[in-house]
Amino acid sequence: MSNTTGQVIKCRAAVAWEAGKPLVIEEVEVAPPQAGEVRLKILFTSLCHTDVYFWEAKGQTPLFPRIFGHEAGGIVESVGEGVTHLKPGDHALPVFTGECGECPHCKSEESNMCNLLRINTDRGVMINDNKSRFSIKGQPVHHFVGTSTFSEYTVVHAGCVAKINPDAPLDKVCILSCGICTGLGATVNVAKPKPGSSVAIFGLGAVGLAAAEGARISGASRIIGVDLVSSRFELAKKFGVNEFVNPKDHDKPVQQVIAEMTDGGVDRAVECTGSIQAMISAFECVHDGWGVAVLVGVPSKDDAFKTHPMNFLNERTLKGTFYGNYKPRTDLPNVVEQYMRGELELEKFITHSIPFSEINKAFDYMLKGESIRCIIRMEE
Amino acid sequence: MSNTTGQVIKCRAAVAWEAGKPLVIEEVEVAPPQAGEVRLKILFTSLCHTDVYFWEAKGQTPLFPRIFGHEAGGIVESVGEGVTHLKPGDHALPVFTGECGECPHCKSEESNMCNLLRINTDRGVMINDNKSRFSIKGQPVHHFVGTSTFSEYTVVHAGCVAKINPDAPLDKVCILSCGICTGLGATVNVAKPKPGSSVAIFGLGAVGLAAAEGARISGASRIIGVDLVSSRFELAKKFGVNEFVNPKDHDKPVQQVIAEMTDGGVDRAVECTGSIQAMISAFECVHDGWGVAVLVGVPSKDDAFKTHPMNFLNERTLKGTFYGNYKPRTDLPNVVEQYMRGELELEKFITHSIPFSEINKAFDYMLKGESIRCIIRMEE
Repeated sequence: MSNTTGQVIKCRAAVAWEAGKPLVIEEVEVAPPQAGEVRLKILFTSLCHTDVYFWEAKGQTPLFPRIFGHEAGGIVESVGEGVTHLKPGDHALPVFTGECGECPHCKSEESNMCNLLRINTDRGVMINDNKSRFSIKGQPVHHFVGTSTFSEYTVVHAGCVAKINPDAPLDKVCILSCGICTGLGATVNVAKPKPGSSVAIFGLGAVGLAAAEGARISGASRIIGVDLVSSRFELAKKFGVNEFVNPKDHDKPVQQVIAEMTDGGVDRAVECTGSIQAMISAFECVHDGWGVAVLVGVPSKDDAFKTHPMNFLNERTLKGTFYGNYKPRTDLPNVVEQYMRGELELEKFITHSIPFSEINKAFDYMLKGESIRCIIRMEE
Repeated sequence: MSNTTGQVIKCRAAVAWEAGKPLVIEEVEVAPPQAGEVRLKILFTSLCHTDVYFWEAKGQTPLFPRIFGHEAGGIVESVGEGVTHLKPGDHALPVFTGECGECPHCKSEESNMCNLLRINTDRGVMINDNKSRFSIKGQPVHHFVGTSTFSEYTVVHAGCVAKINPDAPLDKVCILSCGICTGLGATVNVAKPKPGSSVAIFGLGAVGLAAAEGARISGASRIIGVDLVSSRFELAKKFGVNEFVNPKDHDKPVQQVIAEMTDGGVDRAVECTGSIQAMISAFECVHDGWGVAVLVGVPSKDDAFKTHPMNFLNERTLKGTFYGNYKPRTDLPNVVEQYMRGELELEKFITHSIPFSEINKAFDYMLKGESIRCIIRMEE
């Protein structure tokens, strides 16, 4: 690939021209990486709800034309000035949030919310020069969360690129760039259930199933799935979920149902829906004395979390997490190794696989609720 | 003292006959301890706000006549059947909450909220037989939180008695039975600030000053006291507080003032007032990514804790604590040793000392806001 270094690359990208309209495969120009940037050849990408949410552009300022995509695996094609931790040929996962390594968050053991490279969904340009690296016949096309992986080549800030084991199959580990790590890390890094403990998972979509996978890996013995759609329960069993509660089946609040099932409450709860009522239930269903609830799902702008303060004073803990508290560069290589050792099972999240030319099918599967993850093969 | 074993002891106690009326020193009969109970000779006791609150009996069902008092140090006079961890002559601190050693809370490393012996302010009797061990001319007098230390002798459940180093001065360590440990433990056991970190303390009464002392011991470099009464700031300096904010001095919410002082928020906050607004401010003033807020102050029945859920999702943690997460029997002896090694300074909490015969003065000092702790010398 070295012959393209420093050159504009022309390649295929799936461009969203308008909110909610099918993507169009176009020939785009991809500029070389600037200082601190990396150009990646994307081999596999997958679709996440966040892509769909911003593609639908309900409730945010629309930014079009735009190249979506933020879960992907690829190979470094070239690096910009000053990039030392990556070189052409490295296998890598781009991530929608980054790790500059220098700010108080990166220096804190507890935070992964890098000041410089924290997710920004409103920005459609690179932070170096506030310009796009993508164009069509010279007209700029917007980036999405700094990754834009629905393109055969993309330019990403080096702080948002994790170098991983080259033996790892990119068509599997590409899903670690967002949703799976978000749920997995919420459980293993934040809730930290002990072996033999009980964990309630609110919401059995991809993130919730990943949170359940984290509980399974942690050795939790009771993993209680909570969802309004009972048909999700069968699939969830593969992810370690062994008890189910559909709040619609009960007259009492679901936190009370769970407390009665568990002699006072679960040891841990992980909320993966973004519904404010589920957040309150997830907190109030943990046991006094030691219960920890973790919020993952993103709420609406006007929501208010509300509970009686005695619920805290009785020694319950409420925490939130962003990307499962993983620092992208530092921690993702280790998650890939967890998969390579067989501890973390990724195959069961992958329900579909399609060629890039059919990328709009991935949107259909997700909108119909048929897929957990659909892999998009960029070379086809 | 062995000649009194198994006998009713007649001694002096300060009896509250009516809500809000001065206590009266009476001769009371103190029955021998039953199975699992201990009779203590109280040498020193101190007055805590909780005594005053229930003595005033505003907002609770009044229970009179009653013997208040729950911060004390004494010596075991005799033990009931089956008590093995204490013997006559042991130096001991009675505590308003206990440690049965057998329930899920006692077996949990994280909880101190014993199922059997958790504080119960409505109960005026012993749990063995639902009767009082105190009487005046045969008429029962109610207990208070299982301790009733405003009596020269009292009967306490053995699970509520910590055996301590006999070299420890009881006129100092008696204050560890309640308020001081509550604040101290909230910081050192729950908030756990790192050396060099910033800590905001809401409320500079005895509990808040103890929380500040915990921050000082932990090596926090910025200890920000928050109180509506500016005159408390000077005294608070002794406890490590080195910056002050009076919310009344600012037009902005205090959480915003603190965030601006600390480049985005403090590392830890400890709320010791019980005001719901202070609870919300304490949570919202901690830094995203790693901030932890701990609630200590007891709220009103109808309060609601309310915040935007994004404040959690940005990796803030909110926890509550009860008695500083100390397990009375297991942990109190170690806190006494911290004092004996000079790490924990207790003398500065003790502002007054009076003979038992003048116990009502202790109420006056507290109601006027003049005292932190007033020691009551039982033998005088």
